[in-house]
Amino acid sequence: MILITGASSGLGAQIAQRYAQQGKSLLLSGRDQQRLQQVKDNCLGKAATHVTDLAEAKSVSTLFDALPQPPELIIHCAGSGYFGPLTEQQPQQIVALINNNLLSATLVLQQAVKRYQDQAVTVVVVMSTAAQVAKAGESSYCAVKWGVRGLVESLRLELKYKPMKLVAVYPGGMATEFWQTSGKDIDLSNFMSAAEAAQMLVDALQHSARGFVSDITINRTE
Amino acid sequence: MILITGASSGLGAQIAQRYAQQGKSLLLSGRDQQRLQQVKDNCLGKAATHVTDLAEAKSVSTLFDALPQPPELIIHCAGSGYFGPLTEQQPQQIVALINNNLLSATLVLQQAVKRYQDQAVTVVVVMSTAAQVAKAGESSYCAVKWGVRGLVESLRLELKYKPMKLVAVYPGGMATEFWQTSGKDIDLSNFMSAAEAAQMLVDALQHSARGFVSDITINRTE
Amino acid sequence: MILITGASSGLGAQIAQRYAQQGKSLLLSGRDQQRLQQVKDNCLGKAATHVTDLAEAKSVSTLFDALPQPPELIIHCAGSGYFGPLTEQQPQQIVALINNNLLSATLVLQQAVKRYQDQAVTVVVVMSTAAQVAKAGESSYCAVKWGVRGLVESLRLELKYKPMKLVAVYPGGMATEFWQTSGKDIDLSNFMSAAEAAQMLVDALQHSARGFVSDITINRTE
Amino acid sequence: MILITGASSGLGAQIAQRYAQQGKSLLLSGRDQQRLQQVKDNCLGKAATHVTDLAEAKSVSTLFDALPQPPELIIHCAGSGYFGPLTEQQPQQIVALINNNLLSATLVLQQAVKRYQDQAVTVVVVMSTAAQVAKAGESSYCAVKWGVRGLVESLRLELKYKPMKLVAVYPGGMATEFWQTSGKDIDLSNFMSAAEAAQMLVDALQHSARGFVSDITINRTE
Repeated sequence: MILITGASSGLGAQIAQRYAQQGKSLLLSGRDQQRLQQVKDNCLGKAATHVTDLAEAKSVSTLFDALPQPPELIIHCAGSGYFGPLTEQQPQQIVALINNNLLSATLVLQQAVKRYQDQAVTVVVVMSTAAQVAKAGESSYCAVKWGVRGLVESLRLELKYKPMKLVAVYPGGMATEFWQTSGKDIDLSNFMSAAEAAQMLVDALQHSARGFVSDITINRTE
Repeated sequence: MILITGASSGLGAQIAQRYAQQGKSLLLSGRDQQRLQQVKDNCLGKAATHVTDLAEAKSVSTLFDALPQPPELIIHCAGSGYFGPLTEQQPQQIVALINNNLLSATLVLQQAVKRYQDQAVTVVVVMSTAAQVAKAGESSYCAVKWGVRGLVESLRLELKYKPMKLVAVYPGGMATEFWQTSGKDIDLSNFMSAAEAAQMLVDALQHSARGFVSDITINRTE
Repeated sequence: MILITGASSGLGAQIAQRYAQQGKSLLLSGRDQQRLQQVKDNCLGKAATHVTDLAEAKSVSTLFDALPQPPELIIHCAGSGYFGPLTEQQPQQIVALINNNLLSATLVLQQAVKRYQDQAVTVVVVMSTAAQVAKAGESSYCAVKWGVRGLVESLRLELKYKPMKLVAVYPGGMATEFWQTSGKDIDLSNFMSAAEAAQMLVDALQHSARGFVSDITINRTE
Repeated sequence: MILITGASSGLGAQIAQRYAQQGKSLLLSGRDQQRLQQVKDNCLGKAATHVTDLAEAKSVSTLFDALPQPPELIIHCAGSGYFGPLTEQQPQQIVALINNNLLSATLVLQQAVKRYQDQAVTVVVVMSTAAQVAKAGESSYCAVKWGVRGLVESLRLELKYKPMKLVAVYPGGMATEFWQTSGKDIDLSNFMSAAEAAQMLVDALQHSARGFVSDITINRTE
């Protein structure tokens, strides 16, 4: 069983389809039931859906309650973008950005660790290259992504000697509808599709008897 | 004129007293009028106070409206601590932690940049060494502090070639009441006092004709 | 054609065997002809060998001259370890450590970029998790590995908009003879074998039409 | 007594003059006796000189032997620059760059730690902002500076609970003859003078009963 958040579009939806093709059972979480249903329809009968507001602790707990057993893999893709110079941004949308990225990741990781830290569960946290470098015109977005990274790196220390593993993923330069709604005008023709990034990510999530790929950055070729 | 946030206690209060002794006019912002008044009483008649909820955009704007002219210096000290393993933390207090640290810094910096980016105003953002490294038992705290750092580093790029300067300050190991209310049991006898850290910080904030100290980390000796 | 440095043992030797099994032609570089020959014997007739001193500019140039055509892939695995508190290390061995890690990487990357920067050549630089964090008892080793990382990250900026791609790989916790000769006493039973790490690395080196996996960290499970 | 390396010009020479004005006794180390003598002449009779090749272990040891007692402060300023795209650099000059920066810092820190780790000696290591970020056209320079940073951060862990303190200093954008001999054509009119940077650095090196400024970045205003 694999739990995927942010599964209703973009990278999350594409990852879901790949794992369905591998015959994995899926629980897909998203905010929009209609779009989740469309993704589910592409998942070969392997997926269930769960509408979740990841910025609400109770809603996150209910999502985890819906898992019939400990998942082998949790892929946290949920997130939203909001770009532009800080001076032109709206406080309410900054609050939404924080909730959709930092608060949601905190609540999802809290439930995952609380429930499964003593089991061999792998939690993949999909961030962005904006979690690794500073970017002009993306200051509030970098803020929330750096925040998630600080959370993940600290949780790794809390999980030392536990069987649970955290994998950090940093994609950059993907062309998803994420950008169309982001307020940033940008030529996407050289950007990776979400399908390309999903395929590379699923293939790069390697593990062996005593090791695993713990951090992956995916960039466009330019 | 110097604007200090988080001035009602700890490092902010100590910094206020040092600048008052230098004869600087101060506007002190905090959440508690009574405690702000006590700090003001130690400021030799140089300080005015302003009760502000820095997690409210309007309240932050009102604070900046209260400045009679562009300040030469803004020292953003406001913040709160909340510690312990993530699994034991309460969602409502995590939300408060995010508001008191990441959202407040975003709103304060937004006003500062919007109003003064074309003037020689220095904005000092006081974070923590928890913004630089991961720490077990401080995952949500590191998250918000890494977030503020991502914001500051990105804003620096947005301010390139502007006269406004951002100074990043990372204190570690200070013994303030901050810790007593943090839920973390810790021996503070070897920690710096807020007075010590404030004195070093004020002295280290150097600038010259063409340069300035842009980043300062302060640690305890151990 | 794939060029592999440090191919006479450990990760480099294992990577060579995997690519040989995929039917790739290989040029294997190492310092010891006898050990290179043993690796070659496991490469199904797909490998040629070249004895190279990577700390000598001329020797590195001769290695690249030996390539019959531009390689699709260069995997720079060469390196050596030397551990212990700095106070107990010998200056001559520190010099060797710098030569075997930082100087060799600089000379190899210089030739690779000079010759192939305008072609779709991928250069994989294998470092260590010691390039990402500080470690007590490994200060000189971290120094050279941080150095290689600074080189790679800066070269990426020099290669912007070029078809050549740099991939950074950071393995941690591998059990190779590298440790036996390193002067560090350590229980290796939970460490990954070089074979495990090589398999994960080869599988994680994904690319797509417009993107590629640019950074990979591999850790042991603990 | 203060030991200053790289004291024959630039930042090192300026720092020497400032401490001489404060009445401190100085031991000035550099490669050129004539230029060291000129600096000494500006040091109000407070300075002795010592010609040292910091890339030679014996020479470094002899320098430390010349100290009549443990110094309160060691300021390691020695270093050299060599810039331009990696493809255009000469291997022999890359070797010199490594020796003058990474090897010399390693040997100086080794002697300092070996001799004084159990005493309240402060060692200031002057690097560059090139130790903190990647820069196109400075790949080999960033390599050696990142290397020094990795060394310093790891040594800090080895010195945990020791009275010796390491201070990391990162100046950027200074106009010294360093640039004139660096092969990089650049307008220096907006750069800080070495005198400006030295004054800020000396003033920012604050300490208190239980704490100290451990990291300082100095940038030009632009």
